[in-house]
Amino acid sequence: MTLSIDEIRRHLDGLTKPPKSLGRLEELAARLCLVQQTLSPVTRPRRLVLFAGDHGVVASGVSQWPSEITRLMIGGIREGGAASSVFARETSTDLVLVDVGALSDDTDDQGCAGGRDAPVRSIVRRVRAGTRNLADEPALTSAEFAQAVEVGAEQALAAAGDGMRVVIAGELGIGNTTPAACLAMLLADVPIAIAVGRGAGADDATIERKRSVVEKAVGRALSQWESDPTAAIASVCGLELAAMAGFFVAARAAGLTILLDGYVASSAALIAERLSPGVAQSMIAAHLSREPGHRRVLDRLGLVPFLEWDLCLGEGTGGLLLLGLLEAAAAMTGRMATLASLGISSRGDQ
Amino acid sequence: MTLSIDEIRRHLDGLTKPPKSLGRLEELAARLCLVQQTLSPVTRPRRLVLFAGDHGVVASGVSQWPSEITRLMIGGIREGGAASSVFARETSTDLVLVDVGALSDDTDDQGCAGGRDAPVRSIVRRVRAGTRNLADEPALTSAEFAQAVEVGAEQALAAAGDGMRVVIAGELGIGNTTPAACLAMLLADVPIAIAVGRGAGADDATIERKRSVVEKAVGRALSQWESDPTAAIASVCGLELAAMAGFFVAARAAGLTILLDGYVASSAALIAERLSPGVAQSMIAAHLSREPGHRRVLDRLGLVPFLEWDLCLGEGTGGLLLLGLLEAAAAMTGRMATLASLGISSRGDQ
Repeated sequence: MTLSIDEIRRHLDGLTKPPKSLGRLEELAARLCLVQQTLSPVTRPRRLVLFAGDHGVVASGVSQWPSEITRLMIGGIREGGAASSVFARETSTDLVLVDVGALSDDTDDQGCAGGRDAPVRSIVRRVRAGTRNLADEPALTSAEFAQAVEVGAEQALAAAGDGMRVVIAGELGIGNTTPAACLAMLLADVPIAIAVGRGAGADDATIERKRSVVEKAVGRALSQWESDPTAAIASVCGLELAAMAGFFVAARAAGLTILLDGYVASSAALIAERLSPGVAQSMIAAHLSREPGHRRVLDRLGLVPFLEWDLCLGEGTGGLLLLGLLEAAAAMTGRMATLASLGISSRGDQ
Repeated sequence: MTLSIDEIRRHLDGLTKPPKSLGRLEELAARLCLVQQTLSPVTRPRRLVLFAGDHGVVASGVSQWPSEITRLMIGGIREGGAASSVFARETSTDLVLVDVGALSDDTDDQGCAGGRDAPVRSIVRRVRAGTRNLADEPALTSAEFAQAVEVGAEQALAAAGDGMRVVIAGELGIGNTTPAACLAMLLADVPIAIAVGRGAGADDATIERKRSVVEKAVGRALSQWESDPTAAIASVCGLELAAMAGFFVAARAAGLTILLDGYVASSAALIAERLSPGVAQSMIAAHLSREPGHRRVLDRLGLVPFLEWDLCLGEGTGGLLLLGLLEAAAAMTGRMATLASLGISSRGDQ
């Protein structure tokens, strides 16, 4: 009963166009059909779940931006003026914001806090107020890590329960490309020079500090790897990263199609693959980030990115930006006429 | 009163995101703002006008496909199962089909011939039934060329009159990458090895014939260039290419934003630039085609392509596929909150 990639390609080659003439769109359509195991895939209803968390490591100077920005970003999303809010509205994508570990304590659970025209569901499931500084000590205990994974899993189940078919996990949290880099090194053997990028615009001095912090933290995690891999992962993780990992695992189990965003989300996907091998088979890599380590992480996940637009914003924006093309891919495979119906050989040689 | 690219970039850098973190989307937004001379650009209402024409040169074996396919493609568009029909419906883009020179005579003027859910306006303004074979003689006379240009101009005026703000010109016509290659050589000095590509899937023998035909036709056109450049252009042109050129000139004059499709449309844009220098300033190059000559033609037009998805279908599909990202670009620039409104310095260094 399995729909193979060859059957899918035969279907696409039989549509009223020269074979392969829609290039990467045909590859996107093939991936969507493969993930959903149908030649009539769907792209709606869909939801972006944004997980917010803060990072103790910001105290070590790994980011140009202070942790207070995370709170302002949460406010921006609630008010509907953030990039993710704007793109979610534009693409009729449901948006849920989950505070799994931000520092500020003024983010109360609210059913609908969105300004402008679209409501944003904002939920607080804070495991702790930010991680510890991974430059000095483990960022999370194994228990905290497991709690955050559970928060993410709950959200995937809620999305499935609400009838969603396509989901995106996004993140916000100043400093979170630092744990992402650690995870890329730990779980995908990405060399440090590639794993550590500029994040949200780090200058040379900042990136130097970031590298030295990452090197130390990964060294500590590696020394713990044999005895307790979960503790090793938790030690360099972030609460929003752990939540995204849990989200991915539960989303796949619930049969949802996952649009994978950028470097931080993909590093969380590496955790998800460890928790439940095969999760990446439900994923479509929306884009290739400006962060140099992203391609290596996607390679490890066995995923090919679609949009190469040099994005590095986070907030699930890469996933949202692919939606127009995903819809076109679904429409092509499900709604175009076939050459056979027009009496044309698909070889173009009659 | 002119809105400069620097003012536009300052605006984009002041939105609630790290500067430049939306990569190519910010460049697309900047281009859209520049073309429309506003920080609140629009992407609707919009229309794709598809010009159909046949090519005598198909008799010289330059295509894998016979000219009858053009008629079948016209039927496919009318019935709503062609790629362009499907993408136009998906993106709420108005679709008008204009037969400016197809071979068959069964395409009658019809107000609404579309099957499925969206009507397709199908118009016959046939200047002649296909061009002459440019391998042996001039494809069009100067008078025929001028008539086809006029057909295109009429359609741009009609689009403006109907309140359209964004337009795409698309084409269908078996064999039309051959005149496109001639025009790329004649008007943009593209070398023959780059100008002649595989079109809709030419094999090695076909491409060899295509090269030899193009070389001969361009040689003839060049010998005529000094005395009568319009006749030289007409001699290697197609009716749908001339119509697109007229469409572009009149669209710019009417203040419309033009989404430029692939190699054939861009070769027509070279003609438009000759007819009315500056036309390309109203254009956004939607994508970079698989045809190797496309980048050179865009360079000559001063345009940078956005989607690099290896498309080579024609029918305006590249323009339609960019629309989702164009909407996101417009939403970003017009609807995101500013850093200033959140009390954040745009340098991220406070």
